[in-house]
Amino acid sequence: MSFDLVIRGGTVATGADVFKADIGIRNERVVAIADRIVDGRRVIDATGKIVLPGGIDAHCHLDQSQAPGLASKGARMADGFRSGSISAAFGGTTTIVPFCVQHRGQSLTAAVADYHERAAGQTVGDYAFHLIISDPTPAVLGQELPALIRRGHTSLKVYMTYEAMQLSDRQILDVFEIARQEKAIMLIHAENHEIIGWLADRLERSGRTTPVAHAQSRPLPVEREATHRAVTLAEIAGVPLVVVHVSGGDPLEEIRRARTRGHTVLAETCPQYLLLTAQDLDQPDMLGAKVMCSPPPRDTAAQAALWRGIEDGTVDIVNSDHAPYRFDAEGKLKAGPNPSFRGIANGIPGLETRLPILFSEGVVKGRIDLPRFVALTATNNAKLYGLYPRKGTIAIGSDADIVVWDPERRTTITNDLLHHNVDYTPFEGLAIEGWPETVISRGEVIVQGGTLTGTPGRGRFLTQQTSSAWNTREIRAWI
Amino acid sequence: MSFDLVIRGGTVATGADVFKADIGIRNERVVAIADRIVDGRRVIDATGKIVLPGGIDAHCHLDQSQAPGLASKGARMADGFRSGSISAAFGGTTTIVPFCVQHRGQSLTAAVADYHERAAGQTVGDYAFHLIISDPTPAVLGQELPALIRRGHTSLKVYMTYEAMQLSDRQILDVFEIARQEKAIMLIHAENHEIIGWLADRLERSGRTTPVAHAQSRPLPVEREATHRAVTLAEIAGVPLVVVHVSGGDPLEEIRRARTRGHTVLAETCPQYLLLTAQDLDQPDMLGAKVMCSPPPRDTAAQAALWRGIEDGTVDIVNSDHAPYRFDAEGKLKAGPNPSFRGIANGIPGLETRLPILFSEGVVKGRIDLPRFVALTATNNAKLYGLYPRKGTIAIGSDADIVVWDPERRTTITNDLLHHNVDYTPFEGLAIEGWPETVISRGEVIVQGGTLTGTPGRGRFLTQQTSSAWNTREIRAWI
Amino acid sequence: MSFDLVIRGGTVATGADVFKADIGIRNERVVAIADRIVDGRRVIDATGKIVLPGGIDAHCHLDQSQAPGLASKGARMADGFRSGSISAAFGGTTTIVPFCVQHRGQSLTAAVADYHERAAGQTVGDYAFHLIISDPTPAVLGQELPALIRRGHTSLKVYMTYEAMQLSDRQILDVFEIARQEKAIMLIHAENHEIIGWLADRLERSGRTTPVAHAQSRPLPVEREATHRAVTLAEIAGVPLVVVHVSGGDPLEEIRRARTRGHTVLAETCPQYLLLTAQDLDQPDMLGAKVMCSPPPRDTAAQAALWRGIEDGTVDIVNSDHAPYRFDAEGKLKAGPNPSFRGIANGIPGLETRLPILFSEGVVKGRIDLPRFVALTATNNAKLYGLYPRKGTIAIGSDADIVVWDPERRTTITNDLLHHNVDYTPFEGLAIEGWPETVISRGEVIVQGGTLTGTPGRGRFLTQQTSSAWNTREIRAWI
Amino acid sequence: MSFDLVIRGGTVATGADVFKADIGIRNERVVAIADRIVDGRRVIDATGKIVLPGGIDAHCHLDQSQAPGLASKGARMADGFRSGSISAAFGGTTTIVPFCVQHRGQSLTAAVADYHERAAGQTVGDYAFHLIISDPTPAVLGQELPALIRRGHTSLKVYMTYEAMQLSDRQILDVFEIARQEKAIMLIHAENHEIIGWLADRLERSGRTTPVAHAQSRPLPVEREATHRAVTLAEIAGVPLVVVHVSGGDPLEEIRRARTRGHTVLAETCPQYLLLTAQDLDQPDMLGAKVMCSPPPRDTAAQAALWRGIEDGTVDIVNSDHAPYRFDAEGKLKAGPNPSFRGIANGIPGLETRLPILFSEGVVKGRIDLPRFVALTATNNAKLYGLYPRKGTIAIGSDADIVVWDPERRTTITNDLLHHNVDYTPFEGLAIEGWPETVISRGEVIVQGGTLTGTPGRGRFLTQQTSSAWNTREIRAWI
Repeated sequence: MSFDLVIRGGTVATGADVFKADIGIRNERVVAIADRIVDGRRVIDATGKIVLPGGIDAHCHLDQSQAPGLASKGARMADGFRSGSISAAFGGTTTIVPFCVQHRGQSLTAAVADYHERAAGQTVGDYAFHLIISDPTPAVLGQELPALIRRGHTSLKVYMTYEAMQLSDRQILDVFEIARQEKAIMLIHAENHEIIGWLADRLERSGRTTPVAHAQSRPLPVEREATHRAVTLAEIAGVPLVVVHVSGGDPLEEIRRARTRGHTVLAETCPQYLLLTAQDLDQPDMLGAKVMCSPPPRDTAAQAALWRGIEDGTVDIVNSDHAPYRFDAEGKLKAGPNPSFRGIANGIPGLETRLPILFSEGVVKGRIDLPRFVALTATNNAKLYGLYPRKGTIAIGSDADIVVWDPERRTTITNDLLHHNVDYTPFEGLAIEGWPETVISRGEVIVQGGTLTGTPGRGRFLTQQTSSAWNTREIRAWI
Repeated sequence: MSFDLVIRGGTVATGADVFKADIGIRNERVVAIADRIVDGRRVIDATGKIVLPGGIDAHCHLDQSQAPGLASKGARMADGFRSGSISAAFGGTTTIVPFCVQHRGQSLTAAVADYHERAAGQTVGDYAFHLIISDPTPAVLGQELPALIRRGHTSLKVYMTYEAMQLSDRQILDVFEIARQEKAIMLIHAENHEIIGWLADRLERSGRTTPVAHAQSRPLPVEREATHRAVTLAEIAGVPLVVVHVSGGDPLEEIRRARTRGHTVLAETCPQYLLLTAQDLDQPDMLGAKVMCSPPPRDTAAQAALWRGIEDGTVDIVNSDHAPYRFDAEGKLKAGPNPSFRGIANGIPGLETRLPILFSEGVVKGRIDLPRFVALTATNNAKLYGLYPRKGTIAIGSDADIVVWDPERRTTITNDLLHHNVDYTPFEGLAIEGWPETVISRGEVIVQGGTLTGTPGRGRFLTQQTSSAWNTREIRAWI
Repeated sequence: MSFDLVIRGGTVATGADVFKADIGIRNERVVAIADRIVDGRRVIDATGKIVLPGGIDAHCHLDQSQAPGLASKGARMADGFRSGSISAAFGGTTTIVPFCVQHRGQSLTAAVADYHERAAGQTVGDYAFHLIISDPTPAVLGQELPALIRRGHTSLKVYMTYEAMQLSDRQILDVFEIARQEKAIMLIHAENHEIIGWLADRLERSGRTTPVAHAQSRPLPVEREATHRAVTLAEIAGVPLVVVHVSGGDPLEEIRRARTRGHTVLAETCPQYLLLTAQDLDQPDMLGAKVMCSPPPRDTAAQAALWRGIEDGTVDIVNSDHAPYRFDAEGKLKAGPNPSFRGIANGIPGLETRLPILFSEGVVKGRIDLPRFVALTATNNAKLYGLYPRKGTIAIGSDADIVVWDPERRTTITNDLLHHNVDYTPFEGLAIEGWPETVISRGEVIVQGGTLTGTPGRGRFLTQQTSSAWNTREIRAWI
Repeated sequence: MSFDLVIRGGTVATGADVFKADIGIRNERVVAIADRIVDGRRVIDATGKIVLPGGIDAHCHLDQSQAPGLASKGARMADGFRSGSISAAFGGTTTIVPFCVQHRGQSLTAAVADYHERAAGQTVGDYAFHLIISDPTPAVLGQELPALIRRGHTSLKVYMTYEAMQLSDRQILDVFEIARQEKAIMLIHAENHEIIGWLADRLERSGRTTPVAHAQSRPLPVEREATHRAVTLAEIAGVPLVVVHVSGGDPLEEIRRARTRGHTVLAETCPQYLLLTAQDLDQPDMLGAKVMCSPPPRDTAAQAALWRGIEDGTVDIVNSDHAPYRFDAEGKLKAGPNPSFRGIANGIPGLETRLPILFSEGVVKGRIDLPRFVALTATNNAKLYGLYPRKGTIAIGSDADIVVWDPERRTTITNDLLHHNVDYTPFEGLAIEGWPETVISRGEVIVQGGTLTGTPGRGRFLTQQTSSAWNTREIRAWI
């Protein structure tokens, strides 16, 4: 038996296990894991290295079309599918799940077609889309959405804030109802839109317009409220729910309470909430704009609560929420050199730094072990979003999306190390330990020693199966 | 020194104390409390009786003008200020605080004028109004409301549900802001409007239209959600908040959590939530309509949780939420003899039965003592709604609003015992112990042994002071 | 009608009410409260003053006999019933409830007789005893205790720590069983003895022996654990329970949880936990010994949680836990000038400063209103410990124990202002507002403008009635 | 490359993954996992079957020596290592971790030697011991225990109840201290001994002596209390803690609270708590004795709470707590044919039924998926008790302990199907789906189609590594 590629001598980690083994790959898939595999057309020596499933980043924004009414209105996303997927790959992420955004008035099917076009022939790794539903018309709910879910778009996102995208509670229930019927998995951005607007108005009126006011306009109760409401809506309609980018202990507690009540709620957090605080928004010369995202980073107590949630299993996935706005007149400063915080696009880049940061801060610092690292960054995303077992693990029959990770390489993050098109990183100067050395997608080495070896465009669209959240137990609805 | 009236030989109860004393009244006020008062132009022998402050019912609906879009649309309130205040008096309640409803598009000042006209010369006891804000226009917020608060309308109510009255979160914050500036006390009806509508649609579609579907359309999570949201809005704006008609353990827990976080939240419940359950809505011949109110009665676990809250101090006040719709074609059955639950006016009568029921179920059954009974039904209402010390207690200088209560009289509640204009009581057949014997308003006996002795129209409008909730400690706001 | 004493023109406060009135006193009791009382053999002008029920301090240690094995072993209590009651009176406290301690091997009846002898003819105000049960032998449980409870010793205390006094869980249940049968009210000192000993050993071994190590040897989890255990024992046996000297948010949360489960648990805190922190133990020259008490003061978060509990009703009573050890070789430094923290007597003085501190920090700073102040310091103690309605209020028939309080007098607390025999106060230098001006016990002025006018020995022993905690609702037991 | 054994065509499940693969085994270990393995000296066809890691039962009692004072005093364990391990194997469990019990007065080293002797040459699968510390003398703490931990006895158990074994809080802290120093993992049996004794006395006195009184003598608060105390002791000493046989929602909530505070606490439950209730103890003819275990089964609410804990990750491991007492005069009825519940040995058999029951009730009923089933029954036990990666997974280099599971075989549990020496099963009559078909230990088929093919005595003792609970993050202690 011969292999196209053999990864030899490494320490393999999955979502449950760590063991030394050679990996044999044929026809893009893992076909053998063994103590010793002798032959292979190509052999990678992984001695002293960790062999991980390629990362999946299931929360990132790329080449999103413009919608009226966003804070980011007018701001251009610096990364499209090409640069985004390349940057991801350099950071050890071989699968990305960015968003396909339906605009108000737009057919959802048309939006999906549009994003397929944007992505086709661009990515170096594989990809899927979460569908953002911003206009759940009868046609969308009755025809388009069921059809799209059945065609493999099984993860849907709704927003409780942002003018251009937010749905009312009732609209959310309408979408949840279809999700229940078709067994789609729901993601939700949980912040109370009206409180934010009300606070922001008052901050602006009193002349508090610098980036730190962004954090003041959406304090933790804004997120606690919306999380509890979102969870209640999910209980009413009877759907499992992923609360994305949880930023502190209070919303996490809402999620724990819901679970204890018996409801299936999943939690995502992002590196920015583990490492940054609202104080980072308080810098001269608008520099705080570089760490403006929603929800905003909180404080050290929130960081501690999130780490605790990662350790004790409350947090299920860690993604980047990559939102690529440059710190220039096309991006963050679109509204002028000294705009109000409300004119600054929300979001920060992070596709490439997610795995290195979580590895360094989590595994190296002893907060989590390797299987938990793999579960948080790959396996759980794959299961939750219907990509498993094709993606998210190193197992027989799975796509050979594999990262050979150098656990000892010490790096200080600077933006010139990175491959996105954003002109800064919010983690500039952070010293970390561990970095991807070789990145493999479906058996092909796409990044090797800092060089892109894969051809953009080789990436494939992934049809999603039903989320694992639907695989177990009857989920109760109130109707 | 002579007295207009002396109440002799009774056991006096206040919000803190119980003691034997004679009460001396002059010029409508209590001027002496003593072990023995010999002279008085009129003397009431209260030997063997309990002498209580006249009850205050701070949650009742009387002669409300029609607003479009209510479930009760078209249904006529059977009680106005005259019959309502008489019924209250017969039940030992000498002060009522019904609502003055602003309709959409209406000037708030005009609404207040309208209700003054409706009430003037009608009541047998005294009265004030809570103002329901349904249209917080700039004029209302900027001019009318501050002026009205300063003129003594210091309690305001907002709704999170009902088409004709509900405010958005943002509008609620706007009203809260004025309440903070002018130190008004806020009441809120906390149910999530959109969930209710969504569930009700589905119930109707599936042919579940009988009154019990009313309860199914607004399950406990609907109230838990809205309570948490309401409390969060109050925290953001920095106002104390009264959550009215709390119906079960879950919303009560939200209130406890808010208090533990440090915020001032008050809780009201009503006899119907202590004695009825959703099963009472499930009766043949539309009879369930007689116990339809919002939120709906729940189950025995909810009753137990509410009693616990009454015992441990979480519940601050018990009011009736009297909403007087007859079980006829002008009232509950306005939409026809067999309407969908959505066409049935919400609300049940209870002004007259509130004190007897709470006395019997609370004091006689040993769940609460007399001072707690007085606090729940009179003193706390008076303090919270700015009527103290004029109302709500038996103390020197307070209005002589006093009930001589026969603690041993056994009664079975039937509607023909009652004096409202409603043709039923939801508590028909309930056996209770204790009943008001003599009811005194400002030193005048208005009810004596089952006979009305006061003249309707003698009642006076009460200007409210600032709520006690504003008297203590700085309340933090997020802006 | 003539009066022995009239207090004229003041603002009277009870546990529920505040009103302007004159008070008429005859035969030691309040017999009239009226808008104007003209005649009186003696008249006190209280214009501009507050007229309060005399304080009740239901947690103080006076002239306790020596028991072997206490940390305070050998330390002499500087205050007996005489100086203790005088100091209390100067601080506005007219009733004290110190402890009668049974030693191991001692008959409880003998202990009670002993303390009656210690107290007889000593006090200037009235007094009762809580009985500390340290040796619940069959004779104590079977005969002595029931007899003593029936004779009016209706409040019992047990300790979960201190060598000489602690009971095992099983012994506590045994005492609780008698308390249930005879309807006594239980007090408990809740700290886990074994954890304390274990930590203290290790602190000593590592040379950490200064007073601050006292706090380190009994961290908050020690109290949280014991509080939860105590509450569970009370639930099992079916008795209401007073958790004394609650020092922070965690034990308070255990109490809230028990209440929500439906059990009657009362909470006491003390001024030291509201004003001091563990850092105050960390002073040079053993000065930290002056603030050593058990549980130890915690931190500012604990203070905030306790204030919150006072505001929201979780805390029922505030007492001093006065434990009068001098800072000298007979007291705190009995074990030498530089002893290990384990050789230093636990406890701090506070009888005289309790009311002024709570008034200034609570009422003046707007955290609580006057009725709550009265309830916390007098009424609730009286009710809970069976002294009501004789003590704890200003009501017809109650003992005329009254304080005329000057709300505007500004004082800086220094020990030479005080009248105890302790040579320091832990509150030295604290600036406060409000001070008792005239103190009246059973109609007799015992303190007037800083001078003792009552004769020590005039105080009487008070027979206790059944606690109010037993007056309401069936308390469930598990057997 | 040749293999000793190949398992072909099955669906392999690990703690994270499910995939189709062949398994190649050589020299007792898994050496290859591949899409197709052609050669093997022996081949097992697993088509249509699930291939699982052999179960680990980390909570079972076998051949325990008699200790005075146990409720089970005198009762003989019907299963020793031979029959126990055989019964386990038939149920798909290839590794057992029974207890080595130190008796009071006994050297721990001697106890370990004794149990090695009892086990040597007996078992058909492999085994380790948890050490029960019942007498933590200075010699045990200072010398024996550290030496034994270093020699691979890295899991220790302490009891909070049972006369013969219970430790005081202080002794528990002493043991925890050594566990911290040597990084052992602690197990605890959490029930409050004194409450149990006190209740049991009263039950006996009132003539309530049948088996159901066993449940009444240890109600849920007994376990809630001890769990909170155990967790607090672990926080104080700074050790991770496994709370064994959690029986309901309240203790589970204590564990959740501890985790949210930041402490590492693990939870175990057992099939009896998921399927039985206290009502099962209430049967005629002493039959209730067959389901008497401690803690006792609770009610359906407790079952639901435990399933919720299994689903949401709060429960980490499911073991049997096999305690093999026959329903005869040597076992349950040792104290006579009609004994008081206190004379009946606690414990029920379950080694063989654990996996089939959890598979059927968990996986087949859709409450958990296969990876979670594997994690709960094998992987987590292996990691927690230092047996990983040798045991607990199917991974390269791991022992080839493998079960070929028939997911579709329907069985009704009856005791004659089982291979233990106990004469009953508490699960008699339970209809289940799924059963182990072939059981492999270190590459050798030990059970095949209902026949024992492995030779008792082939099993090996396993030296334990440090628990995974110690591998991550600094655990805070209070000293």
